[in-house]
Amino acid sequence: MLDLVFRPDPRGREPLHRQLESRLRALIAAGRLGPGQKLPATRELALTTGVGRNTVTQAYASLTEAGLVSAHVGQGTFVARRPGAPAGAVPAPARGFVWESLFAAAGRPPRLPRPAAASEPRVRFDFRAGRVDGAALPRDALRRAFARATRELGTLANAMDPFGLRALREEIARALVGRGVECGADDVLVTAGAQQALDLVARALLEPGDAVAVEQPGYFGAALAFEGRGATLVPIGVDGEGLRTDELARALRARRMKLVYVTPAVQCPTGVVLSPGRRAALLALADEHQAPILEDDYDAQLRLGARSTPALAASDPAGQVIHVGTFSKALFPGLRIGYVVAAPPLRERLAQGALASCFGASPLAQSLLVELVRGGALGRHVRRMRRAYAEREAALAEALADALPEGASFVRPAGGTCLWLTLPPAIDAAGVHERARAAGIAYARGESFFLDGRGAEHVLLSFACHPPAELARGARELGAIVCDARAERSAALPAACRTTGTRAAGGGMS
Amino acid sequence: MLDLVFRPDPRGREPLHRQLESRLRALIAAGRLGPGQKLPATRELALTTGVGRNTVTQAYASLTEAGLVSAHVGQGTFVARRPGAPAGAVPAPARGFVWESLFAAAGRPPRLPRPAAASEPRVRFDFRAGRVDGAALPRDALRRAFARATRELGTLANAMDPFGLRALREEIARALVGRGVECGADDVLVTAGAQQALDLVARALLEPGDAVAVEQPGYFGAALAFEGRGATLVPIGVDGEGLRTDELARALRARRMKLVYVTPAVQCPTGVVLSPGRRAALLALADEHQAPILEDDYDAQLRLGARSTPALAASDPAGQVIHVGTFSKALFPGLRIGYVVAAPPLRERLAQGALASCFGASPLAQSLLVELVRGGALGRHVRRMRRAYAEREAALAEALADALPEGASFVRPAGGTCLWLTLPPAIDAAGVHERARAAGIAYARGESFFLDGRGAEHVLLSFACHPPAELARGARELGAIVCDARAERSAALPAACRTTGTRAAGGGMS
Repeated sequence: MLDLVFRPDPRGREPLHRQLESRLRALIAAGRLGPGQKLPATRELALTTGVGRNTVTQAYASLTEAGLVSAHVGQGTFVARRPGAPAGAVPAPARGFVWESLFAAAGRPPRLPRPAAASEPRVRFDFRAGRVDGAALPRDALRRAFARATRELGTLANAMDPFGLRALREEIARALVGRGVECGADDVLVTAGAQQALDLVARALLEPGDAVAVEQPGYFGAALAFEGRGATLVPIGVDGEGLRTDELARALRARRMKLVYVTPAVQCPTGVVLSPGRRAALLALADEHQAPILEDDYDAQLRLGARSTPALAASDPAGQVIHVGTFSKALFPGLRIGYVVAAPPLRERLAQGALASCFGASPLAQSLLVELVRGGALGRHVRRMRRAYAEREAALAEALADALPEGASFVRPAGGTCLWLTLPPAIDAAGVHERARAAGIAYARGESFFLDGRGAEHVLLSFACHPPAELARGARELGAIVCDARAERSAALPAACRTTGTRAAGGGMS
Repeated sequence: MLDLVFRPDPRGREPLHRQLESRLRALIAAGRLGPGQKLPATRELALTTGVGRNTVTQAYASLTEAGLVSAHVGQGTFVARRPGAPAGAVPAPARGFVWESLFAAAGRPPRLPRPAAASEPRVRFDFRAGRVDGAALPRDALRRAFARATRELGTLANAMDPFGLRALREEIARALVGRGVECGADDVLVTAGAQQALDLVARALLEPGDAVAVEQPGYFGAALAFEGRGATLVPIGVDGEGLRTDELARALRARRMKLVYVTPAVQCPTGVVLSPGRRAALLALADEHQAPILEDDYDAQLRLGARSTPALAASDPAGQVIHVGTFSKALFPGLRIGYVVAAPPLRERLAQGALASCFGASPLAQSLLVELVRGGALGRHVRRMRRAYAEREAALAEALADALPEGASFVRPAGGTCLWLTLPPAIDAAGVHERARAAGIAYARGESFFLDGRGAEHVLLSFACHPPAELARGARELGAIVCDARAERSAALPAACRTTGTRAAGGGMS
């Protein structure tokens, strides 16, 4: 008799009939069950595997539905002949696993960025968020800092502290005074970028099915981290004052939230600042519902205005706010250094996660950063880029205001490096995106920041990567594309009316 | 009435009474339920929260057991007065969360390495595994490579490919020919060290309760990664031929395994090579039970002998082996660069995990490595260190053979940088470890490599960090400690006999 090597796992995540179905699918895919081969009778298979007969029947039914087997009354169930495979063909040799059937079920897997195809138009204007101007980076300072860092190579080479290098934690704690956060080196955990900080928090707190409140529109990277632990995301709206705390309050009353994710300093992607009233409401809600706040302070070092609102964590003596930051914006994302400030028991748990997942952030990159901070190069670079970004933002906003048609609008951001644009109503947004792409204008489309497929009418434009004059040129080209699309729509409306009219006339003629 | 803000989650991981208990604990810890305050009657609380009365009774019983509340017949249940707190004391203001009650339940959290206390003896002989000799690293080549890497800073700064830099993947694919693995750049995914590769595999395949077969003794880092996803570890024994495939076969027949983790080239920690017969048996078992093999090839670049057995993945045309490697040994762990070669659907899934967890390995470190490979510095360093390690291993083995007492034994490793030592039987192993620590002799204790607390009679000695003469001195000091412990035991035996004799005489006198 055929040995299925099927061990039902009653405690498994999947019901037994799905487990059996997966196993049979794997055997069919591997050619162990060849085309035309008869499957065991349901009663027989139930007996040999120890599952109920119903379980076998359900598994067979699913396979029949999928076209992998076919049932013939009075004869039994047979493996289907592959489309195009002649009857009696030799089964393929074992070709390994059906990997998909082995994957853990945890949320929607993220779309991967695709390498640019040869046919892809060259990027002429790079408005993509999360990138920095490589030409503006302090290259020589980096080389000098690296040379200094390698003086301690013997220590660095073997450094393995999941909390991060102490020297860097000291510098981060010092820098956080500027965000109103009073903490010491022991309160800081260095991470491989803010993304890892979000992932470690997810790892520490979330279990499959836990609910997490997120901003919508909001940062997709946070969604990836939470969904990676099987969490359910609860989108909360955003307006000109930031997160809608009234909506959050309703959501918290409706169900328990394990975490509230928020970008108070510079809302991602809209660029608005969380208002003082909303800040107070948010902290009160976290306390009332015992739901920790995850504050992503990602762009705060680059606020364009003179004065910076303190971080939410600054108003949180009870340690209910988990504060995350990054050097991806102040320096560059390829450095992969971020940090998290959290209450002691959580910080310990985060370090345990860092140890298990990758032993912590690269000590080499950490040491390089220490040298850049101590030598003053980072401070000089940030001050220079803050001025540069203010000019760039102004140039982009001015050019867009000139070039965009009526009905388009955008928010001038409080900080960060992006501007959130809304296309005119009822325009062919997909057409605009396609034409922009073909013209070599690259940007993040609004849908990326929504969980439900909405947002096509939005565009996030980063002004980080080009000097002002180039930004203005790109804005004018984009503006022309939007104007064209709007004109076509205006032109299309009467045309549609004509078509309708013609039809009606035709109808009258019949 | 008191509003508990308790939303029972029937689909939650914890039973409802535990959910309620956690909520009450949090309220008590936060001072919302003050000392002496009366809790609602069970019937009342059941009605207002919608859970069964039994659930409330269970929650109250657990809190009573924990001393947080006390029940008084006929009066009700009251929050306990804190030890030492006078009756009627003002409750403390809200002080944040009971974080521990919010943590995800996923395996045993790893022990964190503690920073060396001031009272800790200085490490004079560093035999700790996983470290390299910082003084032997090609410092100037590193600086030159970094300078060359920064020429492409504009690209590197924004590089964000979860598969890793293409140039590095090409070099890795080329280098894998030496391990018998035929693959191209597209088959490779670069990770932040081998640990991240293990974690990404765990993330892709494992769900809470899934079983994973691991070597025992075995690598604790792998255990951390698997347990981090809630997997159950099934230890499989190791002997002079490596993993006991007969034990594995029995385990696979007993229950379904989601993964078999193995270190075939240089078993961690024993240093033995998986024999040809076992290799064949392992591959056949993986195929028969459709259980993927995770091959950790961590130390293979540093095999001491002239010829190197090909990787297990070399004998795997069906792609059932997931092949993981690292540059932590060939260069240094602080670089945090490893890689994984896996079948296409799994590789895609691993990249999705990398994206969600940290956006992938540091492009800066990757680029540095590309320059080191292309410029030939890495090859030169590996050849030099292979010779150096062979000398160091010989020096350590020779000194240990001289210095250790009878009954002690060790395995001369096939590769890697460690030597697995077994102390004489019935010796006070804990005493040896304590004396070695006090003398500044640092090493990994055997228990770290066992899941069940066994292994105290073993010591893993790395010969990577010192030149031969120093290793020999350290070995002699350690040998003397072991000799003393053994002599004490021998001395203790007659003494014990005397004591027994005396007692017997005393007994006779009474």
